[in-house]
Amino acid sequence: MTKHTMSVAEAIRTRRTVRHYLPDPIPQSMLDELLDLAVEAPTSWNLQDRSIVAVSGDEGRAGLAWATGGQPQPQEAPVVLVFVAEPQAWREDHGDVYEQARRSGAWNDEFIAGFSAASQAFQEDLDRRGLLREYAVKDAVIAASFVMLAATGMGLATSPMNGWDEAKVKKVIGIADRDDLAVALLVSVGYPAQERPHPGRRPRRRTVFYESYGAAATPSQDG
Amino acid sequence: MTKHTMSVAEAIRTRRTVRHYLPDPIPQSMLDELLDLAVEAPTSWNLQDRSIVAVSGDEGRAGLAWATGGQPQPQEAPVVLVFVAEPQAWREDHGDVYEQARRSGAWNDEFIAGFSAASQAFQEDLDRRGLLREYAVKDAVIAASFVMLAATGMGLATSPMNGWDEAKVKKVIGIADRDDLAVALLVSVGYPAQERPHPGRRPRRRTVFYESYGAAATPSQDG
Repeated sequence: MTKHTMSVAEAIRTRRTVRHYLPDPIPQSMLDELLDLAVEAPTSWNLQDRSIVAVSGDEGRAGLAWATGGQPQPQEAPVVLVFVAEPQAWREDHGDVYEQARRSGAWNDEFIAGFSAASQAFQEDLDRRGLLREYAVKDAVIAASFVMLAATGMGLATSPMNGWDEAKVKKVIGIADRDDLAVALLVSVGYPAQERPHPGRRPRRRTVFYESYGAAATPSQDG
Repeated sequence: MTKHTMSVAEAIRTRRTVRHYLPDPIPQSMLDELLDLAVEAPTSWNLQDRSIVAVSGDEGRAGLAWATGGQPQPQEAPVVLVFVAEPQAWREDHGDVYEQARRSGAWNDEFIAGFSAASQAFQEDLDRRGLLREYAVKDAVIAASFVMLAATGMGLATSPMNGWDEAKVKKVIGIADRDDLAVALLVSVGYPAQERPHPGRRPRRRTVFYESYGAAATPSQDG
C-alpha cells in the first residue's frame, strides 16, 4: 500500500472540486481506509447521528445521475458517497456507545450518567427549537469534509455536491419513506480526468474578523 | 517555523475534542496560517457565504464563556473561532469573485455567465424551500472541519462546540441585530492541557452501507 504523507495543509491547498473522472475503480483497501477515516469524525455528543451510503454500482450511479439533474460526477466517478443525517438518532438507545467508551477507559460511570442526561436534555431543546435536522446535517458535513481531505491525501479527487433533489436521492438509496432521515451532502470520489485551476478566494480581510464581526485585524495581527 | 508533516490520516486519527487548554497563546504566524487554510475550504457555488470571527481578547472570551453556559473552552483556550453562516450572501454582488477567477484563468466569460445564472436560480430555489440557512451552515461547517484537522496537523488541539445560545454568541461578536447571519459552530483552539482517550466509534457496519441504506458490504467488500 502506498504511504500517504501529504500534510493537512498541503491537502487543503491542493484540493480542488473535480467534476470529471477516469473510469478506474478505487482499490477496495483505499475505499476501506477512506470510510474508516470518515467515521472517525466527531459528532455532537458522540451521537454518531450520520451514516454513509457508498454507491458504486451502475444502477445506483445512474440513479444519482438522475437525482442530480444529469451532472457528470455520478456518471464518471467510481464511487459517490451519500452522507445521510439522522436527526432522530438521539432517541435510540446509545448504551453500546457508552459501553464502548467505558471499555476503552475514555469514560467512567459517573461521566456517562451525567453525559447521557445532558445529551438528552440538549437534544430535547433542539427539538423544541426545530434544530434537530440542522445539527445532524452539521455532523454529516464534518464527516464529508474529513473525507474530502483524506481522499486528497490519498491522491484521489472529490466533488462535494449540493445540487440534487433530496427525495430522488433518498429513493435511490432506499429511504424514500424515511422522514426521519435527511440527505446532507454527496461527495464523488475517484481519479481526476481534469485539472482544475484554483478560482481563488476573496482576500482574508473580507471574511475573517477579529473580536467583532466586520472588524479588521489590528496592525500587529495583520501578518 | 516548524514544518508540519502530519498526514491527513494521522490528523484524523489523532484529533480529539479537548476541553482544557494551557494558557500559552498561539503564535500569530500559526493563527494566520490556520485562518488562511480555513478560507481555502470550498463553498457552494464559491459563494464564500461564511465568515470567521477569531475571539482572543479577555472580554470576548468571557462573553463566549457566558454564551456557552460556562464551558471551560472559551475561558482556557487562547482563541475561539466563531464560524458564521451567511444565508443571504448570495443576494450580494459577486463580481469580485468572478473577476478573481477570470484573472487566475480558472473561469472564462462564458463559464461565468452560465455559472452566475445557475447559481442565482439554485439559491432562489433554496429560498423557496426554506433551505438557505441550512446550506450556508454546511459551508461554514466545512471550513470549521478543515480548521480542526489543520490545527491538529500543527500540534494544536481543538473542540468543536454546539452548546451555546445563538442570540448570546451573536451579541458577543456584535451581530445581535443581524437576522441575516447565523452561528454555525464554535471551535476553540490552543495547546492541550489534557489527554483525552478515544471513546471509540460504532463498528463501521452500523453506519456505513453499500448501494442502499442499511445494506452491508458484500463479503468481498468487507475488507
